[in-house]
Amino acid sequence: MSAPRRIDVSLESVRRLLRVGATPNLINLLQKQHPADLAQIFAELPEKERHAAFNTLVERNGRLAMEALSELGPEQGAELLSQRSAEEIARLSQDIASDDAAALIEELSDDLRIAVLDLIHPRPGGGVSELLEYDERTAGRLMNPHVFALPEDVTVAEAIVGLQNARDVEMVFYLYVVDERRHLVGVVSLRRLLLVSPDTPLKRIMTTDVYSARVDLDQEEVARQVASYNLLAIPVVDAENKLVGVITVDDVIDVIKDEATEDVYRLAGVSVDDGVLTPPADSLRRRLPWLMLNLVTAFAAASVVGLFTDTIEQIVILAAFMPVVAGMGGNAGTQTLAVVVRGIALGELTWGNARQALVKEVLVGVGNGLALGLVGAIGAWLVTWGNWPLGFILMAAMITNTFVAAVAGTLIPLGLRAIKVDPALASSVFITTLTDLFGFLSFLGLATIFRRYLELG
Amino acid sequence: MSAPRRIDVSLESVRRLLRVGATPNLINLLQKQHPADLAQIFAELPEKERHAAFNTLVERNGRLAMEALSELGPEQGAELLSQRSAEEIARLSQDIASDDAAALIEELSDDLRIAVLDLIHPRPGGGVSELLEYDERTAGRLMNPHVFALPEDVTVAEAIVGLQNARDVEMVFYLYVVDERRHLVGVVSLRRLLLVSPDTPLKRIMTTDVYSARVDLDQEEVARQVASYNLLAIPVVDAENKLVGVITVDDVIDVIKDEATEDVYRLAGVSVDDGVLTPPADSLRRRLPWLMLNLVTAFAAASVVGLFTDTIEQIVILAAFMPVVAGMGGNAGTQTLAVVVRGIALGELTWGNARQALVKEVLVGVGNGLALGLVGAIGAWLVTWGNWPLGFILMAAMITNTFVAAVAGTLIPLGLRAIKVDPALASSVFITTLTDLFGFLSFLGLATIFRRYLELG
Repeated sequence: MSAPRRIDVSLESVRRLLRVGATPNLINLLQKQHPADLAQIFAELPEKERHAAFNTLVERNGRLAMEALSELGPEQGAELLSQRSAEEIARLSQDIASDDAAALIEELSDDLRIAVLDLIHPRPGGGVSELLEYDERTAGRLMNPHVFALPEDVTVAEAIVGLQNARDVEMVFYLYVVDERRHLVGVVSLRRLLLVSPDTPLKRIMTTDVYSARVDLDQEEVARQVASYNLLAIPVVDAENKLVGVITVDDVIDVIKDEATEDVYRLAGVSVDDGVLTPPADSLRRRLPWLMLNLVTAFAAASVVGLFTDTIEQIVILAAFMPVVAGMGGNAGTQTLAVVVRGIALGELTWGNARQALVKEVLVGVGNGLALGLVGAIGAWLVTWGNWPLGFILMAAMITNTFVAAVAGTLIPLGLRAIKVDPALASSVFITTLTDLFGFLSFLGLATIFRRYLELG
Repeated sequence: MSAPRRIDVSLESVRRLLRVGATPNLINLLQKQHPADLAQIFAELPEKERHAAFNTLVERNGRLAMEALSELGPEQGAELLSQRSAEEIARLSQDIASDDAAALIEELSDDLRIAVLDLIHPRPGGGVSELLEYDERTAGRLMNPHVFALPEDVTVAEAIVGLQNARDVEMVFYLYVVDERRHLVGVVSLRRLLLVSPDTPLKRIMTTDVYSARVDLDQEEVARQVASYNLLAIPVVDAENKLVGVITVDDVIDVIKDEATEDVYRLAGVSVDDGVLTPPADSLRRRLPWLMLNLVTAFAAASVVGLFTDTIEQIVILAAFMPVVAGMGGNAGTQTLAVVVRGIALGELTWGNARQALVKEVLVGVGNGLALGLVGAIGAWLVTWGNWPLGFILMAAMITNTFVAAVAGTLIPLGLRAIKVDPALASSVFITTLTDLFGFLSFLGLATIFRRYLELG
C-alpha cells in the first residue's frame, strides 16, 4: 500500500535484532524512536515479540516505554503492563501525565488496579486516583490536572521565571490566571507575553472572556468547543469555577477519532472496544448479542412471510422478488440513517431544522423509490417474460418501502437522541427490521390482493 | 436535547430582530458572536432568514461575516456568497486566510469563480490562485501560505520584534527557521524563545529534526502525522524542501472529522458531499447510482432463488426462512467490515498483521454462526412444530454464510486498499451481495438435497 513507511524499516530491524538477541543494539534502536512510532511498532509486532521488545525497553528507559504505551492506547497498553508487579507499574506511572496513567491503570485487571492505586503517591494538584473518581467520558477524566496557572498580580517577568520552573508541565500555550482562591479569572497567550513590557501585571493583559469546561461536561461537547473555537487547550473548572485541570488539543483529537469510530461501529452493530487486534473470544462475546437481537427481528419478518404462504405456493416467483423489495428499503434507510446520525454528531441537525430534514429525506426516498421501482418493474417484466402486473406491484411496494425507510431513518435517531440514547446505537437494527417487515408486507400483501392478475402472466 | 445551548438564545433573538426589522440591534448582536457561533446560527436559520442575516452583517463587518462562512464550510458558505458580485467577493476574500478563501471560491459557480480569480491580487508568498493549483486533499491545498519564518542568524530579540510585526499571521506557536534560499532548517517553539537570553541566535536553540509535509502529501497522512506526534502545526515544503506554508491543528481537526464522515458514509453508500442540509435534488442524484448498483446485485441474488422455485413450491416455508440466512450473513459481514475499515483508517491493520486479523475474523464469524444457527434451529423447530431437519439445514447454512461474511469482510477492503481504492467504498455492496448469494444458495441448495427429509416434517 503506497510508499514504504519510515517505520517499516525500523520494524524489520527490531524483528531482526530480537531474533539474534542483540539486546544493546535493540535498545539503541528503540530509544531513537518517537513514542508514537514506538507505539506503531508495538502494534504491528506479533504478540510474543511485542512483549519482548517492550520488556527490553522498559528496563532501560521506563519513561519512553510508558509514553509509547500512552500512544498505543489504554487497552493494549495495559495488556503489556499486566505481567509487571504493582510496585513497578506504580513507579512507571509517575513518569507520564496523570490522565494517560489513569487511562492505562483503569484497564488493568481488578486486583492489579487496586494494588497499583494503593501504592501511588498522591501528587500535588491531583493525581491518578483523583482522576479516576470522575465519570468516564467527562472533561474531568480527560484533563491533565497539572495546569500552569498564576495569580493576577504577577508581572510578565515573574511569569516567565515561573514558566522556566515548570518544565515538566506538558504543552503550555496559555497561562491561566487565577484569583487567591484559585477561581479562573483570565488567560494570557504565550505570544502576548513576548510582546509586552516585562513589568506589566498579568491582569492588565489577560483576556477575561475565557472558554472553559466544567469537570462533568461530556467529552464530546469538550471536543466540539475546542474544534469550533480553534483552541489549543481548554481549562477545566469545578462547580465553583476553580481551575482544576487542562485539556489539550491532542487529547481532543483522540476524542474526535474515538467518537468517529463509535459512529461507524454503532451503525454496524459493533461495540466500541472492538478492533482488529481484539482477541477473538472478546470480539465474539461483544458482537453476538447484537446478532441475536437481529435474529429475533429476522424471525419477526419471517413470520410476516409465513402469513402469505398460500400466495407464494401459487405464485412461487414472488419468493425471488420479495428480498429485493426488503433489501432496497434497507439500503435507502441506511443512507438516510448515515446522513442523519452524522448530522447530529456534527451539530448540523437540530430541532430547529428537523422538519426540513424530514421533508427532504422523504422527497429523496420517494424519488429513489420511483426510479428504482421503474427499473425494477422493467427488470421483473423481462425476467418473467412479460408479467407486467408483477412489475407494477414490485414498483408500488418499493415506493412504499423507501417512504418507510426515509421516515424511520430520520425519526428513529432523532427520537433516540431526545430520550438521551446515542442516536447511532440500535438505529440500524430498528430500520432494517421495519424495512424488512414493510417490504414483505407491502409486496406480498399487494400480490395477494391482485393475485388473479398475476396468475395470468 | 440536553441543556439549552448558549446560542439558542442568540438564535431566537436573531429571528425576532429580523422579523421586526431592527437592523441596528441585529448588527450589534451578530457582531458580538464568535465566528463559530455565527456559523452555527446561519446553519440553523431557514434559508431566507439565513441570507437576510448574512447580508446585514456583511455590509457592516465583512471580515467577521467571511470568518463565519469559513467556519460554516465551503459549500454552504459559497451558497451565501453566490448573490454578490465578483468584485465584492474578491474584496471580501482578502480578509480571511488564503486557504479558507480558496475553499470558498472553489465552490462558486464556474463563471463566478473565474471572474473572482481574475480579480484577486496575487499576495506575496502565495495566494488563493496558487493554492487552487494544488490537488484537492493534499497538504498544498490545505496549508496557509502565510507562514512565519526567519533566517538562522537572527537573534531571539530580533525574532520577538519580528513577531510583533506579524500580527496578522494566524496562530503562531512555532518559529520556522530557513536558510538564505528559504530551505527549512529548524524550528523554535515560542516557549523556548521566552526562556533564553535575547542575544542568542536562533540556530543555537532551534531543533533541526523538524517534522514536515510535502505539498503533495495526502491530507489524511498529514492529519495522521500531526495527531501521532501531537503537533500544533506542521510546516509544508516543496520538492526542494523550501518552506511554502503551514498547516495548523485546527485544520487537521476538520480533516479528521471529514474523513470520519467519509467512513460512515461510504459504508452506507452515501457521497461525501451529502448532508442533512443538501438540497433534495442533489441528494437524490448522488444516492441513486448506489441504489441502482444494489438493485442489479439484488436481481442477481433473486436469480439464485429462481433456480430453486421447484423446491420452494414443494416446501413453501423455505421462503420465510431464506431471508433470515441472508440477513444474518449480511449483519455479521457488516460488523467485520466496520472493524477492518476503521482498522485500516487508524493504521492498526497493515500487511504485517493481515493474516492474524483474517484468522481472528473467521473464528469470530464461525463462532457467531454456530451460536446463531443453534438458536435459529431451535426457533425453526418450534415454529414448524418439530421439523428438525429444517432447523439443521438452517444452522448449516448460517455457519457457511457467516464464514463467507468474515472472509469477504476482511479481504475485500484489504484488496481494494491494495489497488488503491478507498477500502470503505463499495465494500458493503460487495459483501451484502455475496452474503445474499451464498445465503440463498447454501440454504436452498441444502434444502433441495435433503428435500425428502423436510417433507416428512
